[in-house]
Amino acid sequence: MPPASPSLDKGLPETGHRLLADVSLPAAVLHERPLAHNLAWMQRFCDAHGASLAPHGKTSMAPALFHRQLAAGAWAITLATAPQCRAAFAHGVTRLLMANQLVGRANMAIAAELLAAGAELYVLVDSVANVRELEAFFGERGLRLPVLIELGVPGGRCGCRDRDQVMALARAVDDAAALELAGVEGYEGVIRAEAGHAPAAAVAAYARELVTTLQALDTDGLLRVARPLVTASGSAWHDLIAEAFRDAGLGERVRRVMRPGCYVTHDHGLYGEAQARLLARRPEFAEGLQPALEVFAQVQSLPEPGLAIVAMGRRDVGGDRLPVALRRYREGGAADAALSAAGWRVEKLMDQHAFVALPAGVEDVAVGDVVAFGISHPCLTFDKWRKLCRVNRDLEVVEVLDTCF
Amino acid sequence: MPPASPSLDKGLPETGHRLLADVSLPAAVLHERPLAHNLAWMQRFCDAHGASLAPHGKTSMAPALFHRQLAAGAWAITLATAPQCRAAFAHGVTRLLMANQLVGRANMAIAAELLAAGAELYVLVDSVANVRELEAFFGERGLRLPVLIELGVPGGRCGCRDRDQVMALARAVDDAAALELAGVEGYEGVIRAEAGHAPAAAVAAYARELVTTLQALDTDGLLRVARPLVTASGSAWHDLIAEAFRDAGLGERVRRVMRPGCYVTHDHGLYGEAQARLLARRPEFAEGLQPALEVFAQVQSLPEPGLAIVAMGRRDVGGDRLPVALRRYREGGAADAALSAAGWRVEKLMDQHAFVALPAGVEDVAVGDVVAFGISHPCLTFDKWRKLCRVNRDLEVVEVLDTCF
Repeated sequence: MPPASPSLDKGLPETGHRLLADVSLPAAVLHERPLAHNLAWMQRFCDAHGASLAPHGKTSMAPALFHRQLAAGAWAITLATAPQCRAAFAHGVTRLLMANQLVGRANMAIAAELLAAGAELYVLVDSVANVRELEAFFGERGLRLPVLIELGVPGGRCGCRDRDQVMALARAVDDAAALELAGVEGYEGVIRAEAGHAPAAAVAAYARELVTTLQALDTDGLLRVARPLVTASGSAWHDLIAEAFRDAGLGERVRRVMRPGCYVTHDHGLYGEAQARLLARRPEFAEGLQPALEVFAQVQSLPEPGLAIVAMGRRDVGGDRLPVALRRYREGGAADAALSAAGWRVEKLMDQHAFVALPAGVEDVAVGDVVAFGISHPCLTFDKWRKLCRVNRDLEVVEVLDTCF
Repeated sequence: MPPASPSLDKGLPETGHRLLADVSLPAAVLHERPLAHNLAWMQRFCDAHGASLAPHGKTSMAPALFHRQLAAGAWAITLATAPQCRAAFAHGVTRLLMANQLVGRANMAIAAELLAAGAELYVLVDSVANVRELEAFFGERGLRLPVLIELGVPGGRCGCRDRDQVMALARAVDDAAALELAGVEGYEGVIRAEAGHAPAAAVAAYARELVTTLQALDTDGLLRVARPLVTASGSAWHDLIAEAFRDAGLGERVRRVMRPGCYVTHDHGLYGEAQARLLARRPEFAEGLQPALEVFAQVQSLPEPGLAIVAMGRRDVGGDRLPVALRRYREGGAADAALSAAGWRVEKLMDQHAFVALPAGVEDVAVGDVVAFGISHPCLTFDKWRKLCRVNRDLEVVEVLDTCF
């Protein structure tokens, strides 16, 4: 064993550290200004549409961000799995929407533990078999589990495929003393363009179908909670979902719940493009979300003309698309002394390295230069990091956030 | 805040838990028998070729595996970054080969901290600029850093591109009082097939070039350590590297160091195929490595005929290739009661879901069924998990291993 004396803490990010001088790179960086802008933007958007916000927490799995989302006005936090719900609850989040079926006795045990500890937890159901398993498990323990019926789309992911399935499932839930039907859930992100139908039209139609499904359940007396929920929305079609929910004349009794996740940091890729389409649909929006998550990494080697190897790989940044070089700094330099990274093009990622093609004529690049990269699809970059550096405009670390993937 | 009383520990893997009954799935699973086989296989292979083994620890970043590799006879652990070296050292690994340039003052500070604490640490250099920075940093602190010159390949990644560069760099190291030239390093994994040259021939030629480079440095009196190193080898070409090193007539003074990482668990994908080629080259090998890493996950939804949605996504399994369904179990069933997963085909991964096409005629599949998936490229599955379940043949958890990515 090594001597116990050294603290082995060099380069760990700490509040007050300068990102360009004191922090071991690569590092995942949250910029405070766009982050605060996005938190406020989406809450304002939901408020304006009369919807409740239950941000998808699986995006960041950063409890400090959950608490900022709640402080901004979010009604609940959405999670994808039972262990994620446990992690959020352990960090003080007490209203949890698990946007998946609850499958497996070990996962049911986690949910039971959370209910017993006082959590308000909703899960999805899409099969009678699952309803029966849940009924047996929670009934044995004297617990009552609120469930939402998932309505899917043909060719999509989970969820009932038609109204008959929904109604049969709702009756099975009604027969299950340990379950309580609390509403209808959908996820429009799996809708693809089909011949003759723009995805936007299909998304709006799907949102209306969620509403009419909820209304059909209500007509049949199958919604036994005081305030049933209808919920959908990722971070690409929130305008269409919120509008369809708003315009359905549901009244105050139904809580309309939006579940975007990626909005919190937005991106320089897929979601940036989705937003460009949204802003084209909604010209009244003066501004949209702003990218808040970047990965900072250093030039490690300049082995051939026109090629920089940067110390950032698939272990540091999501791989849906290659990251984009945004700016460059001298190590130890000032935040306002950024150099151009125009024409720098990431061509390949290995586990721990990026191959960056440099534009002709770039001569001032040095080993150790710090490059800020924009990412595409925040979920798959957040999950690469146990710690995130939140920084101010001077690139000083103002908070180190833990993730709990 | 939630009540403090509940322990919130349901479903966390523990020694003695049954994987098919007690553990929250999905879970990353290490099978003891093939794991032990692989640990012994690679050590035996290196021993037989007169090489030292410095397994690449970035693959698993699981200190418990590092210690098994060392206990099996490994000489050192290879790591990719300064924080990885710190993590390994903090867990008792004292001889560390960092197979990358050491760039950035915060990363240099980590290396300095490790040297001061007694670590035997080697890093790579490939530029005079980096040598000068290291000299200034470590010289100021009165420390001496052993370095290996990286020899790359044209069109490859880091590393000097020709002998002249190597010799100039070695002279710069020789002039740097805080640095000590300890040998030559290469990574053959970036060699691609070129017109008229099989990659195998290029790999062998590259290994010989590493040796002759070392000999040239020695002839010029630039290797001032008692036992210089020559090192290469990932997990696809280890036979060619080990043979070339063995047959170079280097004598006892030069330590020949192999750095495979993925061998420890092998895979059902890229490395499985690389091994098939290796066994074809080496017909005298009775057997090779065996896949030891699988991801176990449950059927979450059966929304349409022929489609199972499994609760495993890009957050659970590496994305170089889609995982392959190997076997299926009933939840709570016995390890020796596996059902066939023949014809089950993963068609798409989302963040938390796999779309699995089922073969025609499969009727006995149920929500909750547990599917064991083989993975491709262990590095990018290991890094999805903070805990790994090592299991015996009965699929009982015999150890829970932490990772420190």
